[in-house]
Amino acid sequence: MNADIFEQWESDIRGYCRVYPTVFTKASNARQWDEDGKSYIDFFAGAGVLNFGHNNPMMKKALVEYIESDGITHSLDTYTVAKREFVEKFVNTILKPRGMNHKLQFMGPTGTNSVELALKMARRVTGRRTVVAYSHAFHGMTLGALACTTNNHFRNAAGVPLENVLHQPFGCEKTCAGCQLGCGVASVDRLRAMYEDSSSGLELPAAFLVEPIQAEGGVNVASKEWLLAVQKLAHDLGALFILDDIQAGCGRTGSYFSFDGMGLDPDVITLAKGLGGFGTPIAMNLVKPEYDKLWKPGEHTGTFRGQNLSFVAGKIGLGYFDDDEFNQDTQRKGKVMQTALEKIAGDFTDRAFQVRGKGMMQALDVGDGEIAKKVVAGCFERGMLCGAVGTGGRAIKLIPPLTIPDEDLKAGLDIFAEAVQAAVGGS
Amino acid sequence: MNADIFEQWESDIRGYCRVYPTVFTKASNARQWDEDGKSYIDFFAGAGVLNFGHNNPMMKKALVEYIESDGITHSLDTYTVAKREFVEKFVNTILKPRGMNHKLQFMGPTGTNSVELALKMARRVTGRRTVVAYSHAFHGMTLGALACTTNNHFRNAAGVPLENVLHQPFGCEKTCAGCQLGCGVASVDRLRAMYEDSSSGLELPAAFLVEPIQAEGGVNVASKEWLLAVQKLAHDLGALFILDDIQAGCGRTGSYFSFDGMGLDPDVITLAKGLGGFGTPIAMNLVKPEYDKLWKPGEHTGTFRGQNLSFVAGKIGLGYFDDDEFNQDTQRKGKVMQTALEKIAGDFTDRAFQVRGKGMMQALDVGDGEIAKKVVAGCFERGMLCGAVGTGGRAIKLIPPLTIPDEDLKAGLDIFAEAVQAAVGGS
Amino acid sequence: MNADIFEQWESDIRGYCRVYPTVFTKASNARQWDEDGKSYIDFFAGAGVLNFGHNNPMMKKALVEYIESDGITHSLDTYTVAKREFVEKFVNTILKPRGMNHKLQFMGPTGTNSVELALKMARRVTGRRTVVAYSHAFHGMTLGALACTTNNHFRNAAGVPLENVLHQPFGCEKTCAGCQLGCGVASVDRLRAMYEDSSSGLELPAAFLVEPIQAEGGVNVASKEWLLAVQKLAHDLGALFILDDIQAGCGRTGSYFSFDGMGLDPDVITLAKGLGGFGTPIAMNLVKPEYDKLWKPGEHTGTFRGQNLSFVAGKIGLGYFDDDEFNQDTQRKGKVMQTALEKIAGDFTDRAFQVRGKGMMQALDVGDGEIAKKVVAGCFERGMLCGAVGTGGRAIKLIPPLTIPDEDLKAGLDIFAEAVQAAVGGS
Amino acid sequence: MNADIFEQWESDIRGYCRVYPTVFTKASNARQWDEDGKSYIDFFAGAGVLNFGHNNPMMKKALVEYIESDGITHSLDTYTVAKREFVEKFVNTILKPRGMNHKLQFMGPTGTNSVELALKMARRVTGRRTVVAYSHAFHGMTLGALACTTNNHFRNAAGVPLENVLHQPFGCEKTCAGCQLGCGVASVDRLRAMYEDSSSGLELPAAFLVEPIQAEGGVNVASKEWLLAVQKLAHDLGALFILDDIQAGCGRTGSYFSFDGMGLDPDVITLAKGLGGFGTPIAMNLVKPEYDKLWKPGEHTGTFRGQNLSFVAGKIGLGYFDDDEFNQDTQRKGKVMQTALEKIAGDFTDRAFQVRGKGMMQALDVGDGEIAKKVVAGCFERGMLCGAVGTGGRAIKLIPPLTIPDEDLKAGLDIFAEAVQAAVGGS
Repeated sequence: MNADIFEQWESDIRGYCRVYPTVFTKASNARQWDEDGKSYIDFFAGAGVLNFGHNNPMMKKALVEYIESDGITHSLDTYTVAKREFVEKFVNTILKPRGMNHKLQFMGPTGTNSVELALKMARRVTGRRTVVAYSHAFHGMTLGALACTTNNHFRNAAGVPLENVLHQPFGCEKTCAGCQLGCGVASVDRLRAMYEDSSSGLELPAAFLVEPIQAEGGVNVASKEWLLAVQKLAHDLGALFILDDIQAGCGRTGSYFSFDGMGLDPDVITLAKGLGGFGTPIAMNLVKPEYDKLWKPGEHTGTFRGQNLSFVAGKIGLGYFDDDEFNQDTQRKGKVMQTALEKIAGDFTDRAFQVRGKGMMQALDVGDGEIAKKVVAGCFERGMLCGAVGTGGRAIKLIPPLTIPDEDLKAGLDIFAEAVQAAVGGS
Repeated sequence: MNADIFEQWESDIRGYCRVYPTVFTKASNARQWDEDGKSYIDFFAGAGVLNFGHNNPMMKKALVEYIESDGITHSLDTYTVAKREFVEKFVNTILKPRGMNHKLQFMGPTGTNSVELALKMARRVTGRRTVVAYSHAFHGMTLGALACTTNNHFRNAAGVPLENVLHQPFGCEKTCAGCQLGCGVASVDRLRAMYEDSSSGLELPAAFLVEPIQAEGGVNVASKEWLLAVQKLAHDLGALFILDDIQAGCGRTGSYFSFDGMGLDPDVITLAKGLGGFGTPIAMNLVKPEYDKLWKPGEHTGTFRGQNLSFVAGKIGLGYFDDDEFNQDTQRKGKVMQTALEKIAGDFTDRAFQVRGKGMMQALDVGDGEIAKKVVAGCFERGMLCGAVGTGGRAIKLIPPLTIPDEDLKAGLDIFAEAVQAAVGGS
Repeated sequence: MNADIFEQWESDIRGYCRVYPTVFTKASNARQWDEDGKSYIDFFAGAGVLNFGHNNPMMKKALVEYIESDGITHSLDTYTVAKREFVEKFVNTILKPRGMNHKLQFMGPTGTNSVELALKMARRVTGRRTVVAYSHAFHGMTLGALACTTNNHFRNAAGVPLENVLHQPFGCEKTCAGCQLGCGVASVDRLRAMYEDSSSGLELPAAFLVEPIQAEGGVNVASKEWLLAVQKLAHDLGALFILDDIQAGCGRTGSYFSFDGMGLDPDVITLAKGLGGFGTPIAMNLVKPEYDKLWKPGEHTGTFRGQNLSFVAGKIGLGYFDDDEFNQDTQRKGKVMQTALEKIAGDFTDRAFQVRGKGMMQALDVGDGEIAKKVVAGCFERGMLCGAVGTGGRAIKLIPPLTIPDEDLKAGLDIFAEAVQAAVGGS
Repeated sequence: MNADIFEQWESDIRGYCRVYPTVFTKASNARQWDEDGKSYIDFFAGAGVLNFGHNNPMMKKALVEYIESDGITHSLDTYTVAKREFVEKFVNTILKPRGMNHKLQFMGPTGTNSVELALKMARRVTGRRTVVAYSHAFHGMTLGALACTTNNHFRNAAGVPLENVLHQPFGCEKTCAGCQLGCGVASVDRLRAMYEDSSSGLELPAAFLVEPIQAEGGVNVASKEWLLAVQKLAHDLGALFILDDIQAGCGRTGSYFSFDGMGLDPDVITLAKGLGGFGTPIAMNLVKPEYDKLWKPGEHTGTFRGQNLSFVAGKIGLGYFDDDEFNQDTQRKGKVMQTALEKIAGDFTDRAFQVRGKGMMQALDVGDGEIAKKVVAGCFERGMLCGAVGTGGRAIKLIPPLTIPDEDLKAGLDIFAEAVQAAVGGS
């Protein structure tokens, strides 16, 4: 590989290229190749973007046709045919079957922009300024979203105080080993008592911002009970209940939203990553109409908020959810992954490894960032891509494309098992 | 047109679609068509993104080939061949000829993300928190950038105090009619005196953030003297000098950077819009290496920061600057635009219209948002797209693709003259 | 009485005069008279200032002599003989017997000024900005202290966001009826876990600010275990442990500091109210020398910080602590008060009244602000002064001068019992 | 002198004792004695508190009688006879002759508390958060007031960002030598233009906070034109106009308020220092009734806000203003001071000394803190007390008691002239 040009001219802030020290050149479904011809099975999927695989053939075809026919690529928030078809498809496939009447709001095509807009919405609607966010949360890097993100590595880079957020313990389904944060429904009850006491010092919140599954935070799956308790507290206090489904949504967990089937009724849902289907950017919030109508036109803008290549490919991605087969297959593959990880955990009973996840987002928490790092490096060497998440990078997250062939899935999991064995043996 | 689906399901925040009430379907160079077959000459260019025209044929070809060959589309900050070629082209075409050694930093692909990162950089490098920004500035919609943006319409939507910014009057080359802000070098001298007085109440600043040409703010062109004075003050105070060239850069004004030839040496330059060439998103900061090296890997991230379609098309866009011919043509067309606007202004001497601009970003300030609105609507009816900017929307900004054919340029300017005549006559 | 002049010319913000609607004219020890000649037994003691009674005869004598001899009254922080004698007395009577080497720091003579300075100290020493403060806390009305005060009635008047404070549940010795805040040592453990998790979103704190007994907050007595746990957490995190003993200190609870005998080692102690002895203002912090030495001279000032009348009378007040007899008498009287309140609580078993307090600060929590208000009014009518505290004013706090004669103490408690009977009977 | 006890036990933050290294023991009118029997003529007057001299005989008599008769000393905001007499006297002597209907509001007895309350008032009344304050301003040390104070020495001690204030250049009557801040009415006009431009980035202000004469800031006297322009801007914008007359008020400049006769109509006036007359603390705001009535009872409190010794002596102080003779005498003495300073300035024409002041607050700006320090030290050695103010301590402020005998005034000015001669000769 020749990475000199990057080393000389690209910012030192670059990160993933240090984990995967090679130059990639092409990719197809769950396989990626570097310029030396080495092939990698992709269990990283562009940090959750590539749910439908690299260079999905249906999308390729549609994009090429769109470009060749001089379709509009960039349209801000003017109307285009491609956007209309995307909106229509989203409404029919996702909203209507769920009885949802949320409005679709587009913004600058990154997840952090969608979170910024959700926060803005909540603060305006309520006239309050504090947002409740949760330990191990990741919501983005721009100033408003960063205040809700918890990792010190990111927060310390802000250079200004990160204000207007109250941090609370996240309500994991499965308590991480040794966790003392006191999460769970009891924690929501204590917070409620603080809010209900006019001398607690707390101001009423504008919103509760929650990832149903924290991906970057360590693949922490919130319990249904806790989510319902947070939602109830939000609504009792006149605050908005915002679900950030940017990484866990768009089919990743075996249904379109990661929180489907829990009886939740969020006021705002933030979406991005997998929504465009092909890897081109897009972000979108779903907002209840009673709140949406409080916007004045153009109060929040963003040049790249009309990405028609993402609309064209995204519409095809939505087609995967026309019937339930695709979701069922995701669940089946998720079980395969979970079983494989449970087996590994079972092989090292003295180490208290923990398996967490839902659908095709699964993680092995090895409890130690150094070991996890070795596992990730070992996978890379063996031709498989994955990444470490959680506090200190202690868990390895596996999120292959949902479309990964069974043989690649198996091969990747085998590599993973080997890499764990090597890392632990060698530590 | 059929916009029902948008009206029913898209957020009320949508804006431009109200100015251009139609559904667009295809576009080529400076022409855009709606689904009723009506053609529009584009003097808006995707808010400054489409410098090389809609569906630039060289870019189309390259993109189609790239997609068909299973090139990597989405890569975060891993290395790809397409990225390497883009970086190499940028370095050779833009940096080296200018003797610049700035590092290239990629982030979430929107202008506001690039500004957020520039602010973060400046605050970390200096350990200070206040940034000096300017009246009529537009830097983006996320919380950190929004604090530097001045329009009350946007600021009022924040819902939290916008902190850590000192707002100063912008130093226009040509003072807007009736402006009392006291801009110019004298204003910089007064600010210097405040900073040099340990009892002024001002804290030393982290950075001065300036648009050399304020596009959204009304096409206000900063004078060279003022820019040099601000830069000198920044450096004397140990603060970073940041130029936001997001809209005015990438060739728009007849050279690659809008501030070329002024003897400026900015510490950070923010770029986005026109950088990707085709309308797909990208954003990039140029950062002096002595500041860049203070980053820790991955301290600021962003899922969509590796957009290979933008790298592929962007590299072709950069090719336009291989020799000086393209820039000269931009200057020539800019003169055509300026002459046409001056003529209109001359036709209405009782109205004190003002023409402002540089290269192919020109504006007619009609001094009144209502008139400007009528002009824009009149242009739309007559088959030409343009937009109002500045306080109260008082100026109409004309930014056709740099590649617009002469006959379209002329036709567009004729439509504009008619629309002004109609708007003023009818007012 | 003639209060017209007040009604016409004094600000509507005035408060206590509405609870005690008369014009007072003179006072002696625990008796106060209005201009109609009616006498009141004082169980309010100037909100905790008049520990040694109104017009303490020894103090009167010393003050008159001092004034007549042209002693310096006002001296900022220049040296005076009176100040030297006060400092010497404080050191010998209070610090040395406890092995304390804290420095004495004087500031503008109000409690809130002393808290502001303690916060400033902690933030400078640590370079951190967040202070942990507790539910039901009262620390003052100026902006920095107000941010640590919890009552919404006060907080809502700020007009700006109250920042840089994390509010936690206070660790009561005796949990208030129905309290769900989850206070106690478990709460400190949960907070510790948050701080020890680098992805909790919490920044390390500059200080923990605690009232060992919350007077205004409802006479909530912190448990020794909780105070020790908070102190340990503070010191483990490199934060300062600040005790606000403004109302509960200076002998009120039967020892000089309200936390004597608990094995605590605070870094800063704030004192004010009872320190001057006679009712003239004074405030003083005790600061560990290792932190004190970080101040530059004159970095925090205050015109009235050298109050020699307070030094003269305060020195006499300190004399009460030369031997242990006075403290023992305070404990004895405190028991009398507590017994009387327990009896009342026992008389209304259906009402879940709660008695809380230490030494001669005792309260009856009647659980309802309206009832408490009636009790206070009933006492006033019957010739006894006391006040309501706690959330919604639900508890009546009794803090007579420590020097109250036994017959006045008894008479006051009898009036109180009658007033409770009347209020509850009539409710 | 014996200062060991202070050096060992008092906080290192102490300041004035380093300028006057002796232990004072008694004082009468404008003379102060240390315990070695050395006498000092007082041109410092307790930082402006002792307008009526140390141990004013009428006040002594009244205080001794009050104490001996068991008058109430400490009363919070309950009604007392002494308070009623003070309020009545203030209303009759100060308010009614000026046709003012302001309400009297008492708070914790320090200047900074009065400023905090004025800010709170302004922010609540307007629902806005930003206050405009001025270069070289001194408003106090608690967090809210400190944000309006400009000296970096004080601001750097805050430990948290000082927010919600916009700092503007003060409008001096006489521009300080070399000042480049661009003060004056033009500066107010520029600020108005910023506020009137909806894209300036400025939020509408809650208040303009101004010292008509900046004492600590260097004895900078605001011009009438500038004050009127600021007041007009405040009222045009719906903001409060607050005058801080804490040091320059109470007769110091030859009329009761320092701004009398300028046609100003402030919404709030903050008073403290000289109001109590004897050196005991007091602070009071005058608030227009239309704003005052928006308070809820007890929304801002303060234990020591009912200081009856200050009421008793303060009433006598107010008596000095019953006729105009006292003010005329102050003006006459002020001229004596000014003439003496002008003569000194004239003796050193090569040094560009500047004389500034009004009435009996006069200063010699020697342009250099080191020289000023020598002058102050030379005065102290020669038996005269004065202090340095302004940026870097470059000006020596002379504020003897208004009651200073002519011979002491002359003697003090002679000492001052000698000390300047010695300091400049020796530099």
